[in-house]
Amino acid sequence: MVSLRKATGEDVSVIMDLVRELALYEKAPEQVTNTEERMLNEGFGENPAFGCVLAEKDGKVLGMSLYYFRYSTWKGRRLYLEDIIVKEAHRGEGIGKILFDKTIAIAKEEKCSGMMWQVLDWNTPAINFYDKYQARYDAGWLNAHLDF
Amino acid sequence: MVSLRKATGEDVSVIMDLVRELALYEKAPEQVTNTEERMLNEGFGENPAFGCVLAEKDGKVLGMSLYYFRYSTWKGRRLYLEDIIVKEAHRGEGIGKILFDKTIAIAKEEKCSGMMWQVLDWNTPAINFYDKYQARYDAGWLNAHLDF
Repeated sequence: MVSLRKATGEDVSVIMDLVRELALYEKAPEQVTNTEERMLNEGFGENPAFGCVLAEKDGKVLGMSLYYFRYSTWKGRRLYLEDIIVKEAHRGEGIGKILFDKTIAIAKEEKCSGMMWQVLDWNTPAINFYDKYQARYDAGWLNAHLDF
Repeated sequence: MVSLRKATGEDVSVIMDLVRELALYEKAPEQVTNTEERMLNEGFGENPAFGCVLAEKDGKVLGMSLYYFRYSTWKGRRLYLEDIIVKEAHRGEGIGKILFDKTIAIAKEEKCSGMMWQVLDWNTPAINFYDKYQARYDAGWLNAHLDF
């Protein structure tokens, strides 16, 4: 049985392990400059910068959904799903669906007008998964970054 | 002289006018389902969902920067610039630069690791502007949406 719980500050190393696993899959492991210490300060003090739900089985974390709230001038307040990750050895067990459904429920509880996320255009397994929810996609946008 | 000030709840109609002007330029006016009332509740009560700086000249609003804070699992806390808009009749007067520089300053004050935004891949004037800041771009990401 898979159970869900909110992440606490004690989970930052397991969260960062999942983040690094996903970055490797997305072919950009060198892009991860975040650290456990930074995540602890930013996510688990006063005014946490994000929320995180962990999926566990037999006391072992197998996946997570990490999200925050963005503001679309076009649509109003939206939940933004930053990362949904299931450990590679446990894909196909329905854990992603449990996490995604929980994230939708949180967005609705928080009175968001909808939710958003990004997916790489070559990530067919993920797109097939999101298609089941009748997600709508926008192409043609570049992500732009300035690093300080 | 252009001056900057923080937007208040009394500015929601001028903000929404700017938002609709930008959506028209971005060829998606029908996508704007947000309303003045929703923006007032979400942006100007307790726990505002975004911040907004207005650029004024002779008491008239000519542009704005609207932003919030997102959380990149790869990079930590980032300012996300949702919209930077200058009224069409006042482009080329340096107002965009004043607003963009102010937004960078806010991100630094807030101890962000950097800032992010999106730009349409055909929007060459905007890309030329961001190139002056040596922005870094990621292609290949689709924006995905669920509307409730």
